[in-house]
Amino acid sequence: MSDPLTEKTPIRARHIRPGQGQAVEVKTGQLLQIQTLQGKQVADFVAFLQGDTEEFLSTSVTRASNANIVPQRGMTLFSNRRQAMFEIVEDTVGRHDMLYACCDPVRYETLGAPGHANCREALAESLASYGIGYDRIPSPINWFMNVAILARGELEIREPLAEKDDYVLLRALKDVIAGVSACPQDLVPTNGSNPTDLAIRVYRDEPLPPTPMMEPAPAPAEDPATAQITAPKPTPRPAILQSTAEATVTRIGRVDSGETT
Amino acid sequence: MSDPLTEKTPIRARHIRPGQGQAVEVKTGQLLQIQTLQGKQVADFVAFLQGDTEEFLSTSVTRASNANIVPQRGMTLFSNRRQAMFEIVEDTVGRHDMLYACCDPVRYETLGAPGHANCREALAESLASYGIGYDRIPSPINWFMNVAILARGELEIREPLAEKDDYVLLRALKDVIAGVSACPQDLVPTNGSNPTDLAIRVYRDEPLPPTPMMEPAPAPAEDPATAQITAPKPTPRPAILQSTAEATVTRIGRVDSGETT
Repeated sequence: MSDPLTEKTPIRARHIRPGQGQAVEVKTGQLLQIQTLQGKQVADFVAFLQGDTEEFLSTSVTRASNANIVPQRGMTLFSNRRQAMFEIVEDTVGRHDMLYACCDPVRYETLGAPGHANCREALAESLASYGIGYDRIPSPINWFMNVAILARGELEIREPLAEKDDYVLLRALKDVIAGVSACPQDLVPTNGSNPTDLAIRVYRDEPLPPTPMMEPAPAPAEDPATAQITAPKPTPRPAILQSTAEATVTRIGRVDSGETT
Repeated sequence: MSDPLTEKTPIRARHIRPGQGQAVEVKTGQLLQIQTLQGKQVADFVAFLQGDTEEFLSTSVTRASNANIVPQRGMTLFSNRRQAMFEIVEDTVGRHDMLYACCDPVRYETLGAPGHANCREALAESLASYGIGYDRIPSPINWFMNVAILARGELEIREPLAEKDDYVLLRALKDVIAGVSACPQDLVPTNGSNPTDLAIRVYRDEPLPPTPMMEPAPAPAEDPATAQITAPKPTPRPAILQSTAEATVTRIGRVDSGETT
């Protein structure tokens, strides 16, 4: 099976349909898994400190403290007070976004679809019992969202690289409230033009099962046009952001025996 | 003189020294000028709606709504409610940042300089009378900050391209409170390793003086190594983000007769 965590029993689990949001509490040391069940589904993600929601996950501090704009395995995610909130301990995709705001009612009005379900209202609703309203939904991390940055800073939303059962796994470094929404955007390629379901699960702080073996990933090539997608490479690395030659976009492999979870 | 606005009389003006912040009210239609007086000085910039400070300038909505990560002339700056707050009407540099968080006390502790002056506390102090505290300082636009984005998303802070008296000019599209700090960072190249002063000025809503003539800017070159910095080019355009060949970094020119303002 593709997901070694299925051997463990989550202490909390939520199924999230497109346009829905869920809030879940995660204690220091516990693991939060965010999984796309059918593939190509973006998960908008925000987080707040339990007991003091004025402290929250900050994408700008996370970019600055890591000197990088791409969330990737091993990275620490920081709060607006520049405190470590999460570590990314597993990531079966390697391509996520922390540049885009949540979709919201005004976005869909602009697209000619007033009243469309949207991540911002879904997150606000899921976090309302913690006193967190619409205006206080921070800039999210958009797990599985595939945004290319072009030479003059233009952003281009592309279909996610995430396939069925792909996931990220975060270790909480504080006691937090996490909010996750399954993006209902079906008018642009954000979710492969077909929003589907997410699962989120919280696991106890205990040793992880062995890391899945990585399937060979492409080696760097002098000429992207001739890069071999199947060429062996010892360790996974994040996708190249800028190339328009799709052959140079690497994807972190994972074991897949064909069984479904 | 380099700045045609010097022919106009500002209705409000502030001089800001490194490590200081200033708040200024700007009404709909009025113009806000932010100027580096000696050059190479970053201005951290935040803004809030007058009378409802839960609405504020959002870099993530601005990136998403413009599908671009570089603030540039003609761009609209949006709030967290996806409402237009400012238009960039002039920009004599063409290279700014909206990825980095403000420098803050923890940042300087990490750099071995605890207690260093910092933008976040300076902005919070300048905005305290509006009820805006440290935790509510949003991700800023960093005018004149020069951040290169490398192929795998790495961020590299470089010396600003802004020279003496360079400026941006914003038209307010709402009644706003703007906060501006002169970044005191002297441990990395953010401010050319030598923080200096800023001026901010507010002008009435009235016709602007003629746009200054543009000095010739470099033409695109097949081989960056042979690009001519002085080659003519009809219209200014934003700097290329990714090139490591400095010759390909264009800079929007401006008239400079040698007089000082």
